[in-house]
Amino acid sequence: MLKNDYKHKVQYYETDQMGVVHHSNYIRWFEEARVEFMEWCDMGYAKMEEEGIMSPVLEANAKYLKMVKFGESVLIRTTIEEYDGIRLTVSYEIFNEETKEMCCTGYTKHCFLGENGKLVSLKRANEDFHQMFLAELKK
Amino acid sequence: MLKNDYKHKVQYYETDQMGVVHHSNYIRWFEEARVEFMEWCDMGYAKMEEEGIMSPVLEANAKYLKMVKFGESVLIRTTIEEYDGIRLTVSYEIFNEETKEMCCTGYTKHCFLGENGKLVSLKRANEDFHQMFLAELKK
Amino acid sequence: MLKNDYKHKVQYYETDQMGVVHHSNYIRWFEEARVEFMEWCDMGYAKMEEEGIMSPVLEANAKYLKMVKFGESVLIRTTIEEYDGIRLTVSYEIFNEETKEMCCTGYTKHCFLGENGKLVSLKRANEDFHQMFLAELKK
Amino acid sequence: MLKNDYKHKVQYYETDQMGVVHHSNYIRWFEEARVEFMEWCDMGYAKMEEEGIMSPVLEANAKYLKMVKFGESVLIRTTIEEYDGIRLTVSYEIFNEETKEMCCTGYTKHCFLGENGKLVSLKRANEDFHQMFLAELKK
Repeated sequence: MLKNDYKHKVQYYETDQMGVVHHSNYIRWFEEARVEFMEWCDMGYAKMEEEGIMSPVLEANAKYLKMVKFGESVLIRTTIEEYDGIRLTVSYEIFNEETKEMCCTGYTKHCFLGENGKLVSLKRANEDFHQMFLAELKK
Repeated sequence: MLKNDYKHKVQYYETDQMGVVHHSNYIRWFEEARVEFMEWCDMGYAKMEEEGIMSPVLEANAKYLKMVKFGESVLIRTTIEEYDGIRLTVSYEIFNEETKEMCCTGYTKHCFLGENGKLVSLKRANEDFHQMFLAELKK
Repeated sequence: MLKNDYKHKVQYYETDQMGVVHHSNYIRWFEEARVEFMEWCDMGYAKMEEEGIMSPVLEANAKYLKMVKFGESVLIRTTIEEYDGIRLTVSYEIFNEETKEMCCTGYTKHCFLGENGKLVSLKRANEDFHQMFLAELKK
Repeated sequence: MLKNDYKHKVQYYETDQMGVVHHSNYIRWFEEARVEFMEWCDMGYAKMEEEGIMSPVLEANAKYLKMVKFGESVLIRTTIEEYDGIRLTVSYEIFNEETKEMCCTGYTKHCFLGENGKLVSLKRANEDFHQMFLAELKK
């Protein structure tokens, strides 16, 4: 049920003095999982860069449900939530690997920039990537 | 106009290979500004800890409007957006100190925990803090 | 030749505006590799904590030989360099997984604290751990 | 006695589950203090970049003497320890602002790169910077 999910082992340096993972790190984990997901979809960072496409973060959101501790691992499930050729919303669900409890949910919103750093419609700028995003879009 | 705002000088280690501040750091800056704001309101971390009150983050959100670079400083304006005795929403506006442009807006949501780590109504648990939050609540 | 080495995939958030991994992150990677190595030696953090032993960092050193970039992975080889029952030196060699080039070498020095936070001789405080460290000590 | 020293207020996100600042952050603080010191010497990052000079870190070292906690501030004293036109060693002493106790000492070693990313003699590449470093060199 959780297969293909991205696994992250909690690092000591990710904890804070409350004895749990500092909340800012989940935003980094979203990025980790998104990078991996994109590679898995054959749209990895290097490949997009070659094609002159960048996809900066416009918004990030995380809801913290259960604390995660050092010594635990999490599984991060990434979903293409919304995609219209211009804007992209990626959602994330983070589970405690052992207990299977959902610990965090969130999303990031993105646009696409071409080589000049200007906003582009991915549909026009790169039909291949456009089709791949459509194929991965949550049903 | 921007007086009393918290100032943060962008650090080199906060940049990423896009040549701008990595988006996860804004979540950390929210915390920096919130900690300072709370101290300024006489409800600093140490004081709340003495009273046995903790205030974990339930949700964090950031909208990225303009990139910020190394060599620049930002001013972070913190506002108590919502407070009902049980839940707290703090909002943030980040401005480029030089250009005065708004670079990022966001919020964090919090609850209150007592000494046993259980959810408490701040109104019942600590009338002083409760009154202070009400006094700071955005009109 | 590199088998059993700890693998770390470079994360985007670990880069800086020079387009390479920020030098502070290697110190974090040393910790990652050390935690893994200790678990592999059956002296993981949880087990040491149960026995009331902590092992804080007294010194950290890194020499940067080759830059590492996003998209690359590194292998981190951990060695117990020195151990005398009271002090511990762990050394690290970081290799680019693909090119096999050595990118960074370094060490961390540690002491041992007992449950009261006081310095202890591990030899006296915990004979089992003492023997394990001796067994892993570089020949 | 401590005047002109760089001040850093400990941030909550810099702590770890031991309840103190994570050791990797001191390496970041060295950078913060070095950047400030260089600006103070009129050799700030922007100015060096304009002149096509970069100064990457070749080695970093930190000795941890006293733990530092959230709620505390530190003063970081930066010294040009060695400079010969080609290599630079910068040393750091970190003091607890309140107790004046020394908490950490360390150093970073640097070389100089020209616009093509090749190693340069600063003495030959930029006589002005060369003289400034000599003027700041510890007596």
